[in-house]
Amino acid sequence: MGEASAQVDEKRLWSRLMDMAAIGATPKGGVNRAALSAEDNQARRRLANWSRELGFETRIDAIGNIFVRRAGTDATRPPVVTGSHLDSQPTGGKFDGAYGVVGGFEALEAIERTGIETRHPIEVVAWTNEEGGRFQPGCMGSFVFIGEKSVDDIAAITDRAGITIAAALAETLAAFDDLPRRTLGSPVEAYVEAHIEQGPRLENEGNTIGVVTGIQGQRCFSVEVTGEEAHAGTTPLAVRKDALKAAMSMISDLETVMADETDTVRFTVGRFEVFPCSPNVVPGRVFFTIDFRHPDQTVITKLTNQIESICSANARGCTVDVQETVHNAPIDFDPEIVTAIREGAARLGLAHMDMPSGATHDALYLARVCPTGMIFVPCAGGVSHNEAESATAPDLAAGIKVLADTLASLAI
Amino acid sequence: MGEASAQVDEKRLWSRLMDMAAIGATPKGGVNRAALSAEDNQARRRLANWSRELGFETRIDAIGNIFVRRAGTDATRPPVVTGSHLDSQPTGGKFDGAYGVVGGFEALEAIERTGIETRHPIEVVAWTNEEGGRFQPGCMGSFVFIGEKSVDDIAAITDRAGITIAAALAETLAAFDDLPRRTLGSPVEAYVEAHIEQGPRLENEGNTIGVVTGIQGQRCFSVEVTGEEAHAGTTPLAVRKDALKAAMSMISDLETVMADETDTVRFTVGRFEVFPCSPNVVPGRVFFTIDFRHPDQTVITKLTNQIESICSANARGCTVDVQETVHNAPIDFDPEIVTAIREGAARLGLAHMDMPSGATHDALYLARVCPTGMIFVPCAGGVSHNEAESATAPDLAAGIKVLADTLASLAI
Repeated sequence: MGEASAQVDEKRLWSRLMDMAAIGATPKGGVNRAALSAEDNQARRRLANWSRELGFETRIDAIGNIFVRRAGTDATRPPVVTGSHLDSQPTGGKFDGAYGVVGGFEALEAIERTGIETRHPIEVVAWTNEEGGRFQPGCMGSFVFIGEKSVDDIAAITDRAGITIAAALAETLAAFDDLPRRTLGSPVEAYVEAHIEQGPRLENEGNTIGVVTGIQGQRCFSVEVTGEEAHAGTTPLAVRKDALKAAMSMISDLETVMADETDTVRFTVGRFEVFPCSPNVVPGRVFFTIDFRHPDQTVITKLTNQIESICSANARGCTVDVQETVHNAPIDFDPEIVTAIREGAARLGLAHMDMPSGATHDALYLARVCPTGMIFVPCAGGVSHNEAESATAPDLAAGIKVLADTLASLAI
Repeated sequence: MGEASAQVDEKRLWSRLMDMAAIGATPKGGVNRAALSAEDNQARRRLANWSRELGFETRIDAIGNIFVRRAGTDATRPPVVTGSHLDSQPTGGKFDGAYGVVGGFEALEAIERTGIETRHPIEVVAWTNEEGGRFQPGCMGSFVFIGEKSVDDIAAITDRAGITIAAALAETLAAFDDLPRRTLGSPVEAYVEAHIEQGPRLENEGNTIGVVTGIQGQRCFSVEVTGEEAHAGTTPLAVRKDALKAAMSMISDLETVMADETDTVRFTVGRFEVFPCSPNVVPGRVFFTIDFRHPDQTVITKLTNQIESICSANARGCTVDVQETVHNAPIDFDPEIVTAIREGAARLGLAHMDMPSGATHDALYLARVCPTGMIFVPCAGGVSHNEAESATAPDLAAGIKVLADTLASLAI
């Protein structure tokens, strides 16, 4: 092999990444492309346009995932798939997700330029709503694709403005009605996703390629605390049912329980909303989310099973409702794909290391239906989900060289 | 006197209060009339229509305050003024503010029906934006009227949607361009405001009339905490700059310092906003407000002067910016007006008590330019700033009887 990687063009890759980053660009150098928004659709359209220029077929499925396909020699064989997502956090970076899609497309172009014939088709996918910033939960495109839930199951979920997925998806599908439909849930030969690490380990240890061995487990919860609105100037503190105070007390006790000397536990309250949110009204209601991650299922179970009781114990006269929204066990990626990536990096002379993924990716869901792996490249300071997210053109190209060779070897 | 009170009509008052409560009515029985909104203007228009039906003159001033005027016999004398506000909290009650305006109008009608001639004109005012729910700070109509700040000083303040006061006010003034303009800051002979108590004391002690002796002091602050957005799955807790955790730590320490066995301190965090507010992003920014009230200036100074240092000490790697937004010393109302209200209640055989006001009212600002007083009536359970706010027709009418006699005696 090695032929495909030789055709990966660092400048072309960087130029396309910057083209993509111009869509939904924020003043601080990041991007804001909420899932199924106009910006998200503009990004998908740019991918479809690149695909058309190179003569690849582009299709869309019922959840809005976009697939670019290079045909194989045997039409009966399932595709080898690579990709990631084009949606972003509200104040997200230029590379999270976009790298896997744009880089996947660069790998496809590199393979095309070698003229290698593969028995399996190779597809580049942009999964819908990986981030879960606008509609929760994330990874919607991949979990619907593999059949874990149907479009109908999630159609009624709303964003903060009250818009349903059904409505937003209908707009997206209408915007792409020029594309043929791809079937949901059809067999996949293998899935390999390239992504920035979103953590500091590659940079700290001087490596260019992360050979991803699996993804840590995750449980997410939403917590709704209902107290009683009251006048800030007159209501004695003793009789208040202050939902904000109760929520803060819950989170404070949760932090104590989650304390971890090894700093392996990832415990985050990211969404936190107060109602009515007026300076002189005692808060009557608080909604917040908990995102918990750890590589060890035993630790996950032990710690997260205490969440509901800790919230209830800190209700301070309010009522509290805890709902689980995500529950993913830790997973290991396919040993043969992990080996192929490791050997590919070695063959290219790239410094590499094995590592688990701290973040969830669409690969988590694909791993349930086909052999799956991931390739990480460094990002500056490990900073991600942040407009300051940064990565270098050589590192980004290095990851795509490994990806191109891996895809070609899997599809041959 | 006593003639005016005899003309106060409990049913007419209740009926007008319910008419007013239909504007911006919420499903749970409250009202939502944000300052300078369409609903707020609809409420002002209803007042202007009632005024026209009874042949009173209605005027508007440059900050949108609406004045209904019953002429006196001596056009050179300044008016005796009563009133309150028609804007509400986002999930507010039917009586907070509306009672003082609609009840003030009932007092005016009662005086008119007696045919009493007064030397001073009597005016009923609906002050703009008392609540401060949409635009902060509150009591804007009254502090601009007395000249503490100009319209220009506050024109650039925005609501959460980014709309400026200048823009919202221009719409309101255009909607009332059929009304003559009233001068800002012209002399006032006396100001008397009727209001529900918004606390439990009258109900608990079996009194109908609260003779308000003054208003407790208040200091308000806004606090902005800036940390760093980061990925919830990958970023070790040790390196995070979590603005939410820092804000919670500040508030927790503030609560400890504000602890008060006598339960006299009113310490409230009512507005609390998290950015970007996404489940899998470590919060990069938090904005919250502090509302502190106490009757004793020494206590106010001692406790609130610690706020900035406590916030800074809990920054946890974030930066913090504390701004003072309101600073009102405790005030005493005019002794002669307090006496007139107390004697009026006694003459009508109404159970009454002297009490300070826990809440801020427009009367706080009027007291800086003229003799001022307030009349409280009970509200169920002391509940206010809440859709469940409730008061009885007889109690409401009793307060307006005292008001009508007091106004007539001041204007004679």
